[in-house]
Amino acid sequence: MSPESRGEFTAVDVIRTKRDGGVLSPGQIDWVLDAYVRGDVAEEQMAALAMVIFFNGMQREETTAWTHAMINSGQRMDFSGLRRNGRRLPTVDKHSTGGVGDKITLSLAPLVAAHGVAVPQLSGRGLGHTGGTLDKLETIPGWQAEVAHRQLVEQLETVGAVVCAAGGDLAPADKKLYALRDVTATVEAIPLIASSIMSKKIAEGADALVLDVKVGSGAFMKTQEAAQELARTMVALGTDAGVHTVALLTEMSTPLGMAVGNACEVQEAVEVLAGGGPADVVELTLALAAEMLQAADIDADPAVALQDGRAMDTWRAMIRAQGGDPDASLPQARHHHTVTATHDGVVTGVDALQIGLASWALGAGRARKEDAVQPGAGVILHVKPGDRVSQGEVLATLHTDTPEALERAARTVESAFTVEQVQSDGEPRANVLLSRVDVKDL
Amino acid sequence: MSPESRGEFTAVDVIRTKRDGGVLSPGQIDWVLDAYVRGDVAEEQMAALAMVIFFNGMQREETTAWTHAMINSGQRMDFSGLRRNGRRLPTVDKHSTGGVGDKITLSLAPLVAAHGVAVPQLSGRGLGHTGGTLDKLETIPGWQAEVAHRQLVEQLETVGAVVCAAGGDLAPADKKLYALRDVTATVEAIPLIASSIMSKKIAEGADALVLDVKVGSGAFMKTQEAAQELARTMVALGTDAGVHTVALLTEMSTPLGMAVGNACEVQEAVEVLAGGGPADVVELTLALAAEMLQAADIDADPAVALQDGRAMDTWRAMIRAQGGDPDASLPQARHHHTVTATHDGVVTGVDALQIGLASWALGAGRARKEDAVQPGAGVILHVKPGDRVSQGEVLATLHTDTPEALERAARTVESAFTVEQVQSDGEPRANVLLSRVDVKDL
Repeated sequence: MSPESRGEFTAVDVIRTKRDGGVLSPGQIDWVLDAYVRGDVAEEQMAALAMVIFFNGMQREETTAWTHAMINSGQRMDFSGLRRNGRRLPTVDKHSTGGVGDKITLSLAPLVAAHGVAVPQLSGRGLGHTGGTLDKLETIPGWQAEVAHRQLVEQLETVGAVVCAAGGDLAPADKKLYALRDVTATVEAIPLIASSIMSKKIAEGADALVLDVKVGSGAFMKTQEAAQELARTMVALGTDAGVHTVALLTEMSTPLGMAVGNACEVQEAVEVLAGGGPADVVELTLALAAEMLQAADIDADPAVALQDGRAMDTWRAMIRAQGGDPDASLPQARHHHTVTATHDGVVTGVDALQIGLASWALGAGRARKEDAVQPGAGVILHVKPGDRVSQGEVLATLHTDTPEALERAARTVESAFTVEQVQSDGEPRANVLLSRVDVKDL
Repeated sequence: MSPESRGEFTAVDVIRTKRDGGVLSPGQIDWVLDAYVRGDVAEEQMAALAMVIFFNGMQREETTAWTHAMINSGQRMDFSGLRRNGRRLPTVDKHSTGGVGDKITLSLAPLVAAHGVAVPQLSGRGLGHTGGTLDKLETIPGWQAEVAHRQLVEQLETVGAVVCAAGGDLAPADKKLYALRDVTATVEAIPLIASSIMSKKIAEGADALVLDVKVGSGAFMKTQEAAQELARTMVALGTDAGVHTVALLTEMSTPLGMAVGNACEVQEAVEVLAGGGPADVVELTLALAAEMLQAADIDADPAVALQDGRAMDTWRAMIRAQGGDPDASLPQARHHHTVTATHDGVVTGVDALQIGLASWALGAGRARKEDAVQPGAGVILHVKPGDRVSQGEVLATLHTDTPEALERAARTVESAFTVEQVQSDGEPRANVLLSRVDVKDL
């Protein structure tokens, strides 16, 4: 008889064990998460345990057991039966830890799907300064985020790519635990971040997973060290669950691309799908696509499909499959305001967090889950680090339907820019790709 | 306008500040405890904060602010108006962190009161393996623990000593916080232990306070280092609140005296008041009495009042004032059982925790607050460390009204004794007094 079936565990013992440097057994972890979901372990007990984990961390086997207990709290999807033309479709998933101007999913999912890979992107809405993929796509007239499981399967078998809302039945323990962590300053515990992300991603049932772990002011992880630890933890969790998992650490001290908002980010993603778009967005899209194709054992250069229109065709099919009109004009905000350079010089920094906060304040983001977002609100950058500017030149344009938000947002955007009077012909642009973590790095 | 009156504090910010190594301001501490008592800071948020304090500790000014916020959550007593024969009575309080066989309050309060000092001992009932002073006194027929404030003042002015139940209006925040700490494995945080004890003691309003900080297996503090830290923290809190405070660190790896239980401990205390009693109980009683008299600026040897009957007279008056009959026989348990030595040798250890647990299991203690205790249950030791014993000699007698508890308790008592076949003429008895902390040690 196992200890838990004898009722031998108590929340205080589990907390104390971990608090005093011990290692929790899989039985203790299964018990505590199951009892928490049932309400037998109280919110205050889980809060204390989460804070202990913040301080003492978890070993690899503990984080694995924790993640599996979260997965077991809900349903698990299974895409192993996906077929196209009688052939099994490989399924590859991608997850980003979130950043400012991160519209990569929009071009990446159809690009990879255009190579015969199923790409299910179960996504969320934005909260705080990082945008939500669903909020962006919902600016396309007619597009629906809610997709029934049957349609999801059918769309993966025909179009290949689906970006849709995640159902509440994947890892419900995570939902309860995340709400608790949010009010108890325990969000930042790396094992809990990793298991929160990976429990949902593993429950989604893809064969392979490529993680985009962002680093910098606009990211959740502010330092490379923390991002590296998170990446290694997540790659270990995926590997232990039998999912081929790779992580790229990527730059997020500067916004990705030129557009930060909702409709404007869709516009920029479409530019990339048309073979253009900002260099950093293209570079990251291609790097992630290459990892996803490699994980699916497909030998192809994804840049070709951006140039020859196959990625754009898949995008249009994907948008149409969910009721959207890919040719419709996107909504625009009613008011705009420009921020200009106060002196000549070279742009040496555009702080991602401040641009994200300004975009949020202009109406592109929400403060509470139930808030609506403005589709046309946001910030368009005109220059990026490395660009030389003259006094009076436009640095950024702010868009909003609520003009009373402009003044404060403009000040935030102004302070986001660093323009230095350096002698050189401009600084080299920062590299988007910082490092890569796969199973060999564990 | 202060930050809290502008409503600028949030629980998450307070937790995060402390979590990340910052120092909480008095404003933050006042706000968080007040909001917790009001229910605006949730149990899970206070649990997270308590765990942060377990890991990161608190600086002296934070612990002082925390203690004052707890005091301010309730009422404060004031004994500055106590008079006898027209002269102001000094008030000195004593607190023990709790141990096995600790009946010191019973003889100490009347002994010190016999010297013209007011000694209000607001006490609790036992929970777990350490006994409660009120449980012990309640074995005296007729004795009442509940005393109205008016009677408390009158008894202090006439008899000088009162041992009674603490009202719920002293530091009610502590009551709520202690219940939370108990279920979240955050009891052991030294700043929280110190502020829990000191908030109630400072609110009791004595001029001086002598702390008995116990160290060893039967004590809450298992090591001298931890006990020293707790003692220094409490002396600092008392000093900062204007209360003359001294702490003695005392031995608790062995039970104090020979009697562990309720009625049997009263019996032992009466022996001390009659000028006899076990050497360690007498030594500790006199050491604490000397500190209390010194704090009240009274130059006297307390040993004299034990010998000349003044302490016993005050005891009898104190028991009578609360309805008790000091001459009544004390209750006895219906069953007993002896534990004997399995071989010749010298007793080198009698583990306090195991004796405490055995006494608890025999019925002297309670598992839940609402349980009743057996007045006659407990363990009487016949030998102590340093004593030479022969095979078959009685080491201890167990007393209970529930004979089914005897077998397991007997095994626990057996395992508490270490009898070694050493050649010497017995080990020297351990010193009860380990060290002393006062304001000069801060």
